[in-house]
Amino acid sequence: MKQFISVYDVITSNNGNINNAINQLVNEALTYKSNPLKDNTLGNHLRLGMLFLNPSLRTRLSTQVAAANLGMETIVFNVDKEGWALEFEEGAIMSGNTVEHIKDAAPILGSYFDILAIRTFPSLKNRADDYSELYIQQFIKYAGVPVISLESATLHPLQSLTDIITIQENRLHKAATVHKKPKVVLTWAPHVKALPQCVANSFAQWVNAWGEADFVITHPEDYALDEQFTKGATITHNQAEALKDADYVYVKNWSTYNDYGKVYENDPAWMLTNETLALTNNAKVLHCLPVRRNVELSDEILDGPNSLITTEAGNRVWAAQAVLANIIKTMKKG
Amino acid sequence: MKQFISVYDVITSNNGNINNAINQLVNEALTYKSNPLKDNTLGNHLRLGMLFLNPSLRTRLSTQVAAANLGMETIVFNVDKEGWALEFEEGAIMSGNTVEHIKDAAPILGSYFDILAIRTFPSLKNRADDYSELYIQQFIKYAGVPVISLESATLHPLQSLTDIITIQENRLHKAATVHKKPKVVLTWAPHVKALPQCVANSFAQWVNAWGEADFVITHPEDYALDEQFTKGATITHNQAEALKDADYVYVKNWSTYNDYGKVYENDPAWMLTNETLALTNNAKVLHCLPVRRNVELSDEILDGPNSLITTEAGNRVWAAQAVLANIIKTMKKG
Amino acid sequence: MKQFISVYDVITSNNGNINNAINQLVNEALTYKSNPLKDNTLGNHLRLGMLFLNPSLRTRLSTQVAAANLGMETIVFNVDKEGWALEFEEGAIMSGNTVEHIKDAAPILGSYFDILAIRTFPSLKNRADDYSELYIQQFIKYAGVPVISLESATLHPLQSLTDIITIQENRLHKAATVHKKPKVVLTWAPHVKALPQCVANSFAQWVNAWGEADFVITHPEDYALDEQFTKGATITHNQAEALKDADYVYVKNWSTYNDYGKVYENDPAWMLTNETLALTNNAKVLHCLPVRRNVELSDEILDGPNSLITTEAGNRVWAAQAVLANIIKTMKKG
Repeated sequence: MKQFISVYDVITSNNGNINNAINQLVNEALTYKSNPLKDNTLGNHLRLGMLFLNPSLRTRLSTQVAAANLGMETIVFNVDKEGWALEFEEGAIMSGNTVEHIKDAAPILGSYFDILAIRTFPSLKNRADDYSELYIQQFIKYAGVPVISLESATLHPLQSLTDIITIQENRLHKAATVHKKPKVVLTWAPHVKALPQCVANSFAQWVNAWGEADFVITHPEDYALDEQFTKGATITHNQAEALKDADYVYVKNWSTYNDYGKVYENDPAWMLTNETLALTNNAKVLHCLPVRRNVELSDEILDGPNSLITTEAGNRVWAAQAVLANIIKTMKKG
Repeated sequence: MKQFISVYDVITSNNGNINNAINQLVNEALTYKSNPLKDNTLGNHLRLGMLFLNPSLRTRLSTQVAAANLGMETIVFNVDKEGWALEFEEGAIMSGNTVEHIKDAAPILGSYFDILAIRTFPSLKNRADDYSELYIQQFIKYAGVPVISLESATLHPLQSLTDIITIQENRLHKAATVHKKPKVVLTWAPHVKALPQCVANSFAQWVNAWGEADFVITHPEDYALDEQFTKGATITHNQAEALKDADYVYVKNWSTYNDYGKVYENDPAWMLTNETLALTNNAKVLHCLPVRRNVELSDEILDGPNSLITTEAGNRVWAAQAVLANIIKTMKKG
Repeated sequence: MKQFISVYDVITSNNGNINNAINQLVNEALTYKSNPLKDNTLGNHLRLGMLFLNPSLRTRLSTQVAAANLGMETIVFNVDKEGWALEFEEGAIMSGNTVEHIKDAAPILGSYFDILAIRTFPSLKNRADDYSELYIQQFIKYAGVPVISLESATLHPLQSLTDIITIQENRLHKAATVHKKPKVVLTWAPHVKALPQCVANSFAQWVNAWGEADFVITHPEDYALDEQFTKGATITHNQAEALKDADYVYVKNWSTYNDYGKVYENDPAWMLTNETLALTNNAKVLHCLPVRRNVELSDEILDGPNSLITTEAGNRVWAAQAVLANIIKTMKKG
């Protein structure tokens, strides 16, 4: 891989067969899980710069741990947006609030670091801007080194790779069922705030590209996601129907895509509970965290035997480690 | 040691004799002071996560230095409380301002790190909540790895261990007096703000458990501390009487415990000066820092020959190093 | 070198010949550029503390990278000024907003770290205070270990060393001209905010001390800098005249020095463009960044072949590495 922005970056390493490429990355991650230090000199004398335009807990810590396991140095830079507002517009006359242009900042970060990892959230105000991924694309254009997304305006690929790893790991624990195509359901859940679509978009993109699941997405009528990510999935507004016989349920809130960034309804009936979980094939439950307990998911599920959520968050390390290792190997071949 | 939250955690490593256990930890710290790198591979491939729910200078830096001396990796996470307000209440419906429950956050931090170190301050509003140590106890309950307090609602054990180290080190410099029981005085001092009781509580808890001092606490009438910590000490409201023949004077402000979190008076007569120091047996003076000069302590004392305060702050490194090493050794035996 | 606060600290290492001393430091930096890891154990078991009283991107990252290249550990401490306001006045009664006196903080930082690096900006309100360099001088006085300026109230020596390195490196690429004295012009540029004089002061101080350039400073009438730095340069208010036949043009805004800290005018005619660049001897252009595009410098220059600005920012690493190595070697000689 030369960068890690979406599922399609995985393909470069496997003759264009994306299912194989994803499975290979998943296997590499699980190998690191069983032996974290197996490549602990691979990253020696390589330096990872992690730039946060938005705050992060799990993503930051898991990626730092992954880099350390590979013997890389990491330097974290939390951007105080008020103190260092970046300009992204070409030709801007910078007499306003932005203090530095991405054209000047990115190449310098690229000169200090061997790999750059960047988090940047959507505005949720201007859909065209957010969905053009202007910020991360400008970083890639000007940085001159491999860029890893730590979540961008519309996608969160380290989370989605983790999700596939977690599902695959769970299937391998039940050897009898590993050859059966699992039913994977992505269900919208209520929340108190307007959240980005990126985790849902990205999960849909990865499960579709992976191709090993019977994939269903369910959400209230106004919460349709962008088709570029969901195409290939069965979509229904009937949560009960979607959950029927599900093997894995991914719970996530998102704000509206069409009338962009709105919260239309918050019907608590969409919260996953043991009652609705009973409709499934004793499904395992995933969530990217942080989770609003008893709003998105009930305590009984989060504290119960069907939750894979802590395992999933732990797997963030192995996803990041597999991605970093893959990019480093590509650089060294380079 | 399996954790480091209060003086009673020390006991586990010494057949229940707390005086011996404290002295052994003090000796280990002083050994590190004379040879900082003597165990510089002990912590290799172990990772310390330092989580600050409240700001820190000395505690953060000294613990990072200590971990580095042991060959450990450290990752610091300063929590922006507005961005990542944790929920601690069981069964909460999280539709308010808290974004993540400790039950979800702590096990994940425990999966990323081998040891967690946490700072969390009291509210100074609700005494029952503060004195139940809800925050740090919930971390311990859910983290699944050893937890070190970097100051909690009611205690500051790394500071108190440092204080004993500093007193003991000073006694050893005067070999003739090492067998005489020193008189140690904890005196309240004025301040402009309402401060936690934790440094005072913790110092009292440690000196009492150590048992090698004639221990006197002096404060204005309304500033009594919780008996669970002070029991065993002589308590007086007469500072002059307390200071008489003292060998060590620990100066510290705290807010009221009974009518919780208030500043009742700020009589400048309680500020330690050379005049009041003249009542002592040429006592050495300690303070945990930061200090409000000419409010808590006069310049003449801070800049004079009786101050051990800079030495004491430097000793924070060796206290943290002894604690980390002790916990690592317990983990390795485990 | 025993510290790095101004150009005059360089001299101690070269029998008082400042031109030789600067050139030697420049050569060391360029040697590191061609072989970053050549001294990668020099800093082993040495610890650099970086304390930011003001925010930093390039300076922080380049110095961290430089320290890592030398095998040093670095710990960064960003001071939240509201949470940790330092007192610098001797004898202060600290009943106000400052929470810790530099006399107490600095020696402790000196006990935790082998070298301290500090950034502290001017107030731009009180010239006498700013130009006395009270903050950094108090740190030096009380820290007890070598101090490196990461930009102080009136100077920015790591930037200026970088600037000389960048000019010298560019001259060496054109072997035919290396023996000709280059014409170096420092030109004021418009900006939307009142900025410190330190980059301009420092560049003037270094170019004058270096002595290998025909040095001209040009600025609007009210923008004269302090003579202690500019003495030796030709000063003119006619930018066109200054730029004539220039080999290197350093572009920088600063606020007024005499009527201190003001913005008197912002005549866009002072912005460097290809039109004004045509007056020069095909001059290379430098700027310390961040730059306000199309306010200080036009896009056409920043994106054109005459800009050395990205190279210059990259060279920050080698300047910091040469300074750190030099100080470490002095410490080891002891």
